[in-house]
Amino acid sequence: MSEANKQIADALSRVRQSKPLIHHITNFVVMNDTANVTLHLGALPVMAHAPQEVAEMAQMAGALVLNIGTLSSSWIDSMLIAGRAANEHQVPIVLDPVGAGATALRTQMSQRLLQELRISIIRGNSGEIGALCGAGGEVKGVESVRGVEDPAAVARAMSAEREMVVAITGKRDFLSDGRRTWGVDNGHTWLTTITGTGCMATTAIAAFAAVESDYLMAAVGGLACFGLAAELAADKAEGPASFKAALFDQIHNLRPEQLERMARIVEL
Amino acid sequence: MSEANKQIADALSRVRQSKPLIHHITNFVVMNDTANVTLHLGALPVMAHAPQEVAEMAQMAGALVLNIGTLSSSWIDSMLIAGRAANEHQVPIVLDPVGAGATALRTQMSQRLLQELRISIIRGNSGEIGALCGAGGEVKGVESVRGVEDPAAVARAMSAEREMVVAITGKRDFLSDGRRTWGVDNGHTWLTTITGTGCMATTAIAAFAAVESDYLMAAVGGLACFGLAAELAADKAEGPASFKAALFDQIHNLRPEQLERMARIVEL
Amino acid sequence: MSEANKQIADALSRVRQSKPLIHHITNFVVMNDTANVTLHLGALPVMAHAPQEVAEMAQMAGALVLNIGTLSSSWIDSMLIAGRAANEHQVPIVLDPVGAGATALRTQMSQRLLQELRISIIRGNSGEIGALCGAGGEVKGVESVRGVEDPAAVARAMSAEREMVVAITGKRDFLSDGRRTWGVDNGHTWLTTITGTGCMATTAIAAFAAVESDYLMAAVGGLACFGLAAELAADKAEGPASFKAALFDQIHNLRPEQLERMARIVEL
Repeated sequence: MSEANKQIADALSRVRQSKPLIHHITNFVVMNDTANVTLHLGALPVMAHAPQEVAEMAQMAGALVLNIGTLSSSWIDSMLIAGRAANEHQVPIVLDPVGAGATALRTQMSQRLLQELRISIIRGNSGEIGALCGAGGEVKGVESVRGVEDPAAVARAMSAEREMVVAITGKRDFLSDGRRTWGVDNGHTWLTTITGTGCMATTAIAAFAAVESDYLMAAVGGLACFGLAAELAADKAEGPASFKAALFDQIHNLRPEQLERMARIVEL
Repeated sequence: MSEANKQIADALSRVRQSKPLIHHITNFVVMNDTANVTLHLGALPVMAHAPQEVAEMAQMAGALVLNIGTLSSSWIDSMLIAGRAANEHQVPIVLDPVGAGATALRTQMSQRLLQELRISIIRGNSGEIGALCGAGGEVKGVESVRGVEDPAAVARAMSAEREMVVAITGKRDFLSDGRRTWGVDNGHTWLTTITGTGCMATTAIAAFAAVESDYLMAAVGGLACFGLAAELAADKAEGPASFKAALFDQIHNLRPEQLERMARIVEL
Repeated sequence: MSEANKQIADALSRVRQSKPLIHHITNFVVMNDTANVTLHLGALPVMAHAPQEVAEMAQMAGALVLNIGTLSSSWIDSMLIAGRAANEHQVPIVLDPVGAGATALRTQMSQRLLQELRISIIRGNSGEIGALCGAGGEVKGVESVRGVEDPAAVARAMSAEREMVVAITGKRDFLSDGRRTWGVDNGHTWLTTITGTGCMATTAIAAFAAVESDYLMAAVGGLACFGLAAELAADKAEGPASFKAALFDQIHNLRPEQLERMARIVEL
């Protein structure tokens, strides 16, 4: 077992002990699912988008998730208000640019959030990240239909340029902070059969980032944890819905020592 | 096995091969469920309602679902923008007039969508369709509490008048394009115990309409497919939630040859 | 078996016979779950928030749920319109002040609803109710992190002052109408592992209030019914998601005679 395996297992223990509040401004499709994933990980979820309260909520939080999956212009305003409060109070922001590349609005709003806020971690599929950093990438709806050619290099270059952790998820997840680059191999193909698994992975990253200030390893830990739960759940799957129930059960039941032993993470 | 059984089984195969994008502007209650049903059928879901992006999204789509289940006036504007783009690009629109007849707003907005857009298929329960075409019908919340007397005749008359496919769902589903009228007998009473099954049926119709330009048979296929999955799921039901999980599993697992063999569809 | 056990079992029978419409203006996280809970109890759900239709919908309803879990200012306007219509037509209103105490907006909006409407029943956790009546109480996100010291006394005093039923839920639920005070001991710790169980409990109360004009006993019945279903579901739980499915199945399967026999309710 590597030091990194210990580090992320320890982070999971700390999520469960300190129960950080994870403030989400997220899309309507996954609100219930990501609230549950937050709870099952051991953290506390809150979904709040009113401009009058998001600053107050964000500064109480251990991490702030901004997810543009069903965005509208008033929600972007709330994301900016919440994000500024998070930045002032050193609350890490995790951005999920759902569907960036599919429409001009989603691409532009993602860019705007990246410009106006200090984002700690961005997580997207290969098409979304490729569209945002100009490395190619094509998105149909919210699905990556053409990814970047070398995700490790793209993650490294984009993270170095923008000074944030970049996580490109796929069969292998590629993560970089511009200096170090990691791969995460946990996961299961059943994850592609249900909606919102990208958003759930983002939530897992946020829970880890609330307790682990090395945001690269927080992101590695969140993705390994989510992917490992999927692997352990796959045995019970008779289809996507039974898989999803088993996945949620496993996220709750996953013990830090399992994560330490079974996380398949590697520095590239 | 009839030609029609072959036709709808073939359509299901094509959904899985071509993975059409199904753009939904739909209600908050079912967004997660209908996104999952779309995926389990083999298509790609996207939920997008911002007026700045709906035209761009709709014209990429294989079908557009307009569902007024939790409507507000700004969402109707987005539905009109998306609908016009769909009409321009020959993307079929499937309308679900949830709760039409229950309040003046829902009835009027459904009528407005029918007047300002070229709708390919409308699917509603007997009360909703009755309220919209003036054939009687009473709706309490979103539930039909009094249906039309002769749904086959109502579907036929309304479809002939409005030049669209009309699908009235119930114990037997009645569908017409004004010329041909079909009945679909697949389904199960467990479907009445969970929320959103009408909306899910609409989504199934949209996935079929994205690959089958004979919209009457697309609607027949979508309803037979959804109803058959419910029949196959019923064995595993110990209550509504275990039924729902089994239903979603079955939608994913359903093979075109099962649909060809077990679809109970009949020209009336 | 006490008279009260008979009374609440009888109320459950009446929910199933009369199928009252429960109009919800509620948060995005739980819309699907509370719609399903409403159906599984035997009532009919509708979610509607457009200002143009909420008065019409509310006056048709057997009860109106106002839940501020993901509030924004336009939704509060709709809540006031719906609430006034409910008050005019003697439709009981059940308020769920989700997250009151966590932000100024939530506390103020809850107070405004309490001042401008005649609320029949308020249900919250100990932190939320404490924050609203000035008895202490601290809320982190939507979670009570510090409750009131003597919930029975707080419920009694607040209900007497405001002339409504106050229900403070927790390991033991405390309910009062200012004159009588009851405890409900049904429930299970699994309920703390999934999101929205407070909102679901509120929905159960509303279904009972639609058929039982003794609102204190309606609230006792709704909470006993929901808590008992959780107890009966616990055997099947292998984690939070399998627990949730079993809970929903049990709500549907629960027979009035089980509720009469197993409700653990006591006048304090």
